[in-house]
Amino acid sequence: MTETPRWLSPAQQNAWRCFVRMQEKLNGRVSRDLQAESCLSAADYRVLVHLADAPDGRMRSSDLARSVEWEQSRMSHQVARMVKRGLVCREGCFKGGRGTFVVITPDGRRAIAEAAPRHVETVRRLFIDLLTPDELRTLARVSRRVVEQLEK
Amino acid sequence: MTETPRWLSPAQQNAWRCFVRMQEKLNGRVSRDLQAESCLSAADYRVLVHLADAPDGRMRSSDLARSVEWEQSRMSHQVARMVKRGLVCREGCFKGGRGTFVVITPDGRRAIAEAAPRHVETVRRLFIDLLTPDELRTLARVSRRVVEQLEK
Repeated sequence: MTETPRWLSPAQQNAWRCFVRMQEKLNGRVSRDLQAESCLSAADYRVLVHLADAPDGRMRSSDLARSVEWEQSRMSHQVARMVKRGLVCREGCFKGGRGTFVVITPDGRRAIAEAAPRHVETVRRLFIDLLTPDELRTLARVSRRVVEQLEK
Repeated sequence: MTETPRWLSPAQQNAWRCFVRMQEKLNGRVSRDLQAESCLSAADYRVLVHLADAPDGRMRSSDLARSVEWEQSRMSHQVARMVKRGLVCREGCFKGGRGTFVVITPDGRRAIAEAAPRHVETVRRLFIDLLTPDELRTLARVSRRVVEQLEK
């Protein structure tokens, strides 16, 4: 890196720091509340949400890891713990070692259905209800744009 | 929870999902880029930024954990690894077991100074440069409001 770095302007730096701080605080609190009020950690919940949304509740383990942006090894450990608790199961094992599928179980669907009402209440109280409809629209628009750029 | 859950409206649910997705993708990518282009993980960087901003580069270990919203045990493991690499050191140990201080070392300051230009470039390319000044202002305002509510 030989060129002069394009440092952020004070307004940009302030916005970025506020945003990072908000994510730290919000995600920390949402995770703790979820754990306290259900049998699920934030990691369990994320995995279950992705599976519950997938056709037949099943995803290839590597695709699941990619969806939540984890290393495959972290996902394998997470899935192993969830298999033990009966929230998901592994299925199939193709020739050529292309990896197994992870499938949400009826217990997994029940766990997420039970956790959802309180989780939604937390998300409302700590985030959604604090934003105006205009601010929410801006947030959704910006989020889509950033994700599109990342997926290019 | 006996009352009917106040489920999110479609617009609210869409905004929340987009926002969660954006955080997953953006944080995953920013972390990988940081790791690839410097000697620091995202966790190292977060800890060093908080210390570098603190008076005399030192914080009580419990305050540091609270700032980044981690459990104390996770922070202890993280700090132990960073001590081994010479990025921070532990200092003092008061009677009554109120815990030690963590201090950024000159090597820690050097590491963050070296990582910063590329990290800023990543943050610009993947986020800041994609938002209009108005959108950035909205984001900063919303972030401050959410953090204030969380700190009440």
